[in-house]
Amino acid sequence: MTVRIIDVREVTKPIASPIRNAYIDFTKMTTSLVAVATDVVRDGRRIVGYGFNSNGRYGQGGLIRERFAPRILEADPGSLANEAGDNLDPDRVWAAMMQNEKPGGHGERSVAVGTIDMAVWDATAKISGKPLFRLLAERHGLEADPRVFVYAAGGYYYPGKDLAQLRAEMRGYLDRGYTVVKMKIGGAPIEEDRRRIEAVLAEIGEARLAVDANGRFDLETAIQYAKMLRDYPLFWYEEAGDPLDYALQAALAEFYPRPMATGENLFSHQDARNLLRYAGMRPDRDWLQFDCALSYGLCEYQRTLGVVKAAGWSPRRLIPHGGHQMSLAIAAGLGLGGNESYPDLFQPYGGFPDGVAVEDSHIAMPELPGIGFEGKSDLIAAMHKVAE
Amino acid sequence: MTVRIIDVREVTKPIASPIRNAYIDFTKMTTSLVAVATDVVRDGRRIVGYGFNSNGRYGQGGLIRERFAPRILEADPGSLANEAGDNLDPDRVWAAMMQNEKPGGHGERSVAVGTIDMAVWDATAKISGKPLFRLLAERHGLEADPRVFVYAAGGYYYPGKDLAQLRAEMRGYLDRGYTVVKMKIGGAPIEEDRRRIEAVLAEIGEARLAVDANGRFDLETAIQYAKMLRDYPLFWYEEAGDPLDYALQAALAEFYPRPMATGENLFSHQDARNLLRYAGMRPDRDWLQFDCALSYGLCEYQRTLGVVKAAGWSPRRLIPHGGHQMSLAIAAGLGLGGNESYPDLFQPYGGFPDGVAVEDSHIAMPELPGIGFEGKSDLIAAMHKVAE
Repeated sequence: MTVRIIDVREVTKPIASPIRNAYIDFTKMTTSLVAVATDVVRDGRRIVGYGFNSNGRYGQGGLIRERFAPRILEADPGSLANEAGDNLDPDRVWAAMMQNEKPGGHGERSVAVGTIDMAVWDATAKISGKPLFRLLAERHGLEADPRVFVYAAGGYYYPGKDLAQLRAEMRGYLDRGYTVVKMKIGGAPIEEDRRRIEAVLAEIGEARLAVDANGRFDLETAIQYAKMLRDYPLFWYEEAGDPLDYALQAALAEFYPRPMATGENLFSHQDARNLLRYAGMRPDRDWLQFDCALSYGLCEYQRTLGVVKAAGWSPRRLIPHGGHQMSLAIAAGLGLGGNESYPDLFQPYGGFPDGVAVEDSHIAMPELPGIGFEGKSDLIAAMHKVAE
Repeated sequence: MTVRIIDVREVTKPIASPIRNAYIDFTKMTTSLVAVATDVVRDGRRIVGYGFNSNGRYGQGGLIRERFAPRILEADPGSLANEAGDNLDPDRVWAAMMQNEKPGGHGERSVAVGTIDMAVWDATAKISGKPLFRLLAERHGLEADPRVFVYAAGGYYYPGKDLAQLRAEMRGYLDRGYTVVKMKIGGAPIEEDRRRIEAVLAEIGEARLAVDANGRFDLETAIQYAKMLRDYPLFWYEEAGDPLDYALQAALAEFYPRPMATGENLFSHQDARNLLRYAGMRPDRDWLQFDCALSYGLCEYQRTLGVVKAAGWSPRRLIPHGGHQMSLAIAAGLGLGGNESYPDLFQPYGGFPDGVAVEDSHIAMPELPGIGFEGKSDLIAAMHKVAE
């Protein structure tokens, strides 16, 4: 009997918070929580894969219900399974979802597809009885490494937040085992941002600080900030300008010799390739932050890894945006440089399985079948509600 | 009293047809029909603006209802009106819609916003009592030209269609006054496409033929087609490769000296700018096909015109995709090179006001307030149903 997908469900949930970056506030942010139910029963329990979309983009209930879930459910089950018929083939499910979609226009639908794709990979790894990171390493002929670098993303603007609170927040990340932390810039005047950076650097001592402008700056402001920021030994200067303004990014290298990072708002392998072709990014020091959960999922992310390698970059230069376990699994399985994490935000979606501690800014992946959601009690409880 | 938007309504309608291009079939295609109702009453009738999304991308009811309509309806009415308060300010309505949207990711939401933006401009022109094309010319200090070039897009693949039917279809366009026609390529083997092209050229005589690959080809196939196509005096060779593969487009110029066209699947001024920066397009012969109704509307299209001019191109090189009256109005008001039309497809949305005839591949814009939907009886009947 061929493994079948018997249902695809979605609920849109708030992940609102009072934070603000240089571009948007998050008071009305939502996410889609998706369950892909299969007809496989193991140990008396139906195997269900789960997914959710990454923060910063909104839930995609409309697109999932109108286009992507129906295409899966209307497909011949044999067309979605592997040759043996004993598991799903995520690439074939992906192809079914993208039927009759025109090329280009990579936004929103890339989130809808990425969210379902996460659930499909979760189900596939569970059916194979393996952690996704081990399944991925096997498929790519690699050695999995369960130890993954993570950094603490925070330092948002919110009403009334002062330097003492910012320092206390960063101190809290160090106390929880992080040695690399990140803060927002570009949402305040440059001299205020300088004071914020100096306050954090004074607080964190030997630890490292990355700063993130969230695409806010025009070329002139990006250069002005580059000249200010190069006075400090920062971990990286992230997303200075519009994510599609490759010429701005390329010009910035003239003013900023230290590491830069970008890519979280590029949602296809074609866009990633354009960044590598045109933005003057430097493979010896810069970082690429494409987030599979916003960008058509792991099927597409593997194509993105293909263009990254073709351009002469190591997968170690990729540290995805988003702070979800899907990217942890990809990092451990395919040798990425690490993953973002938001210790205090976007719960219960982000973060690690219960009992996983951060030490020296690394975590160790537990040996849980699938992506590992079953190991995080608050998250799996929310997921079970969607499936039931 | 400040002019107010009192309601934004959307219904998703099928625009299915049995046609197929090289990339997708249209059997499940939908469009969003939108009505933006104002509190302005003229001659006993409430002024309502209408919009719809262009073909090839799906209706956007979910995004419109969840994000974009609420942001307009929750905004302070004064923040959406012009300084005098006696009309809407489309750019301010646009800014309200795009609040808390991150940069990048230009797809789907660009369609949702473009559809509402069309309705907002329709309402704005109606409140000013002028045809949109005259309002636009005034605002830009230009002379409006009601005479607009149009070409007939067709030549799709569909089951059982043979060369005789293809020739008859093209003959029909000539009989209706077109002197430039377009057909699809890339959905059949190259030698069959060559026979299709030769059949059409034999049929149309002095008239001109454009061909459209809908982004289907990889570099090798695009070059192979370029070598075949350059044997014929074509009007243009359209969208050979993936819309974001600027390097492919640039390489193609080495093999194809005649005019090429692309841009219908680029949905922001940033993407348009990248095309102009990186794709080796030639301002003396190539054509740009950005479609405002898929790309955040006329507010964004004006920014796109800005980057087009900054790159040294004439607005005459723009002939938008989509075949809707919105682009006709922009062409007549802002001096574009013309507009696509689909004489037999996507009704009642596409096409011209009743009684407007094509002569020598040009139409003359009637002096109707707004975009001109009230002049097309089947379309305005469908629109009135949304508003009532």
